[in-house]
Amino acid sequence: MSCLGCDLANAKFTVHTIYEDELVHCFLDINPFNEGHTLILPKRHVKELTELTYEETLAVMDAAKMISKKLNTLFEPDGITINQNGGKFSDLTHLHMHVIPRYENDGFTWSESTIQDGAHKRLAETANKLLRV
Amino acid sequence: MSCLGCDLANAKFTVHTIYEDELVHCFLDINPFNEGHTLILPKRHVKELTELTYEETLAVMDAAKMISKKLNTLFEPDGITINQNGGKFSDLTHLHMHVIPRYENDGFTWSESTIQDGAHKRLAETANKLLRV
Repeated sequence: MSCLGCDLANAKFTVHTIYEDELVHCFLDINPFNEGHTLILPKRHVKELTELTYEETLAVMDAAKMISKKLNTLFEPDGITINQNGGKFSDLTHLHMHVIPRYENDGFTWSESTIQDGAHKRLAETANKLLRV
Repeated sequence: MSCLGCDLANAKFTVHTIYEDELVHCFLDINPFNEGHTLILPKRHVKELTELTYEETLAVMDAAKMISKKLNTLFEPDGITINQNGGKFSDLTHLHMHVIPRYENDGFTWSESTIQDGAHKRLAETANKLLRV
């Protein structure tokens, strides 16, 4: 089955590479949230975080740290956000971690969920359920 | 210097623990974006991702995978988002990674930055700069 993420990670398409090793390929997001917005993709076809091997996990996170340092040096942002969206929220069929230079009032907001089901009142109940699964 | 994150990570305050080991403490966010929203904190005082040791990085990511599995089993969300905000966007003086069950139209949106500086037209230039720092 074809996977755009696999093709990007394995350089079948031209990308703007920031870093690459045996396990991961890091390149600029073609539609950056802010300048320097980088994606980290494992080269192996992996969709979810839970599928990453020990070595791949470290490779992804080492890359995230290294890219964060580069972004801090070059852009001196107000902060850096690391984000990985799984399931229906992955816009590739391949795991990709975002490393995003952030600035105040840049619109990256998620403080309030549209789902208001009183979850903040059920913390003890929720924790008990999660401890049992 | 006092740090609320240190106090939370080291159980000086009551939290709703999901998992704990020598290096990390994982507990429910007191103001969950969605039910099951969990925070992973290193026990050592660390503010930025780049400061995490090899062992702490693995401990954080192992916890992220384990909690993702628990959230998937219990809530069957549409996906899971892993998020870590550094610099000014950290609302603690201590690194914390969010693990958030996600549902369609839950309002976690960041597709469009308010900063429109044409960065998508300067990808080659940006990559060249990042390769040099």
